Amino acid sequence: MRSAPLFGVSSGVNELLQKVLAGQPRAVARLLTLVENSEVEAQTAVSHLYPHTGNAHIIGITGPPGAGKSSLVTALAKTLRRQGFRLGIIAVDPSSPFTGGALLGDRVRMRDLAGDRGVFIRSMASRGSLGGLARATSAAIQVLDAAGYDKILLETVGAGQAEVDVASAAHTTLVIEAPGMGDDVQSIKAGILEIADILVVNKADKPGADHTVKSLEMMLHLGPLGGTRHHGRVLAAPQMVAEKAKDAWQIPVLRTVAITEGGIELLAERVVAHRAHLLATGQWLARERARSEREVERLLQDRLLARLQTAVLPTEREVLLTAVAQRQIDPYTAADQLMALVLKKR
Amino acid sequence: MRSAPLFGVSSGVNELLQKVLAGQPRAVARLLTLVENSEVEAQTAVSHLYPHTGNAHIIGITGPPGAGKSSLVTALAKTLRRQGFRLGIIAVDPSSPFTGGALLGDRVRMRDLAGDRGVFIRSMASRGSLGGLARATSAAIQVLDAAGYDKILLETVGAGQAEVDVASAAHTTLVIEAPGMGDDVQSIKAGILEIADILVVNKADKPGADHTVKSLEMMLHLGPLGGTRHHGRVLAAPQMVAEKAKDAWQIPVLRTVAITEGGIELLAERVVAHRAHLLATGQWLARERARSEREVERLLQDRLLARLQTAVLPTEREVLLTAVAQRQIDPYTAADQLMALVLKKR
Repeated sequence: MRSAPLFGVSSGVNELLQKVLAGQPRAVARLLTLVENSEVEAQTAVSHLYPHTGNAHIIGITGPPGAGKSSLVTALAKTLRRQGFRLGIIAVDPSSPFTGGALLGDRVRMRDLAGDRGVFIRSMASRGSLGGLARATSAAIQVLDAAGYDKILLETVGAGQAEVDVASAAHTTLVIEAPGMGDDVQSIKAGILEIADILVVNKADKPGADHTVKSLEMMLHLGPLGGTRHHGRVLAAPQMVAEKAKDAWQIPVLRTVAITEGGIELLAERVVAHRAHLLATGQWLARERARSEREVERLLQDRLLARLQTAVLPTEREVLLTAVAQRQIDPYTAADQLMALVLKKR
Repeated sequence: MRSAPLFGVSSGVNELLQKVLAGQPRAVARLLTLVENSEVEAQTAVSHLYPHTGNAHIIGITGPPGAGKSSLVTALAKTLRRQGFRLGIIAVDPSSPFTGGALLGDRVRMRDLAGDRGVFIRSMASRGSLGGLARATSAAIQVLDAAGYDKILLETVGAGQAEVDVASAAHTTLVIEAPGMGDDVQSIKAGILEIADILVVNKADKPGADHTVKSLEMMLHLGPLGGTRHHGRVLAAPQMVAEKAKDAWQIPVLRTVAITEGGIELLAERVVAHRAHLLATGQWLARERARSEREVERLLQDRLLARLQTAVLPTEREVLLTAVAQRQIDPYTAADQLMALVLKKR
């Protein structure tokens, strides 16, 4: 089945897709480059891969700068490799192209993994828009999934809403903290706690680790979920009590020392257990459904803007936007006028 | 002119709008609450205010947690008030509603300003989506602008791409750093340097301030802009050299000690000078044009999703999304099918 010819793509791309489906790393790398450059044919190509996706376990790793995420990803990857899993690693940097250098420096630490054909590593930087990054990341996940990687580690650099949005592509989300980062409430402010399936206090050999673990445990206990998650959403209290016993996941707070691989075996075990939990409770499909919804909505927005660009002359558009800037017309009316050009009458 | 009746809104809202245009703080607060709750009538109402906007100078303030942004905003606000400006302050928190408490704590520091009728303060938290927050923030800016506030200080909590996007609503962007924040390259990683019109090293009485100032100056000098900005975009090198002499803004690196108001007079002077620079060089209109474009694109996306919700039955939508989740159809095809329901044929 995997060797069936594909339609709507050139024979060159068709050959590339066959090689991706056969799991050839160089073909994967080439297709990801096409995807990052947003070439139209690449999108058609990825749509052909879609039926071959859905097997990979996508693991998001996020947390504030300085928590040691890169080291932790490296250590976790080594452990999962020993267990025989094929791994894709995507490092997402929502910062700008000007500043991509810093991230590439971090990647040097992952060189331990570079000789291993069972590991594929890719850094993706923002090209100036979060939407573009989210789209490229989503496509990259699909390519790696179709290429047969069992687990995809999706590391994000920061700890803001942007990272939360990117991490929402994951089945299992690890939030990494470290002791002594000056401000215990940094992660709370960043609003990432409630997306965690597993909390990790890395650098657990440093002073203050106990305090950080206790703070996180207390927050979990006090939080709206009481330390559990249901289908990735907050439930109203009575509903929560009812469902809690049945299929709640107890969010663990784990200690690791990534550079010596301390605590990493247990972390890997909990990661694998979380996938089993999602599958056993039907939450896997619920998360896939939510991912599909976000993906389709993102594509819809892209398509609308693309259609507008072909339906409206650049000069018309320019006149309209200048009129908005000069307060001759309000943006709501301008949007309505543009919509009327491309939308069917109700 | 400001007392003319407005169409398309109820008489209650009409009265509210007249009070907003007359600059009454309680009416402003009520309208902002309507806007945050995304009520349809509120949007129509804001569109009526639009012709009365365009006078306010919008000042974005961003930087990493711990740099002292809230204190700096308070100090800058006091100084600008002494110069007679009416001020709106919007504090934007891209973190979640669960964790809004921390931000509200920060706001306590601004209580010094609370008795002053020439200052209006509002906190806006994310309701789970960045898009929603950007939309509400944009509407709030329009309301405060129409209500006659001269300067609108837009403070964002974090320092990631999300904050960059929010800050893109500003005419003048201040990026705040502080010495000894552990990692000098934190702000570089976060990719916010290139959006700065003015760089501020706050807590400049702390050890390491000289080092932080020098690092920033060196980065400005080495960066693609060589310490200047042109119309908010990066120019190709030859174009840059040609335009540099004519209307380049030299990005200053200023030292402040916000809690004692040290250095704040000079900061206020540079903020006011930047507005004059934008107006003198025609860059003000260019920035207004860019703001209009983002606003119209955001509204277009909202309208498309709203139209889809009325055009597609919830059950049809559910069937389609479940089919995507189960890999029976790919998301690109699903998006095309949904688009065909609402878009005109080419």
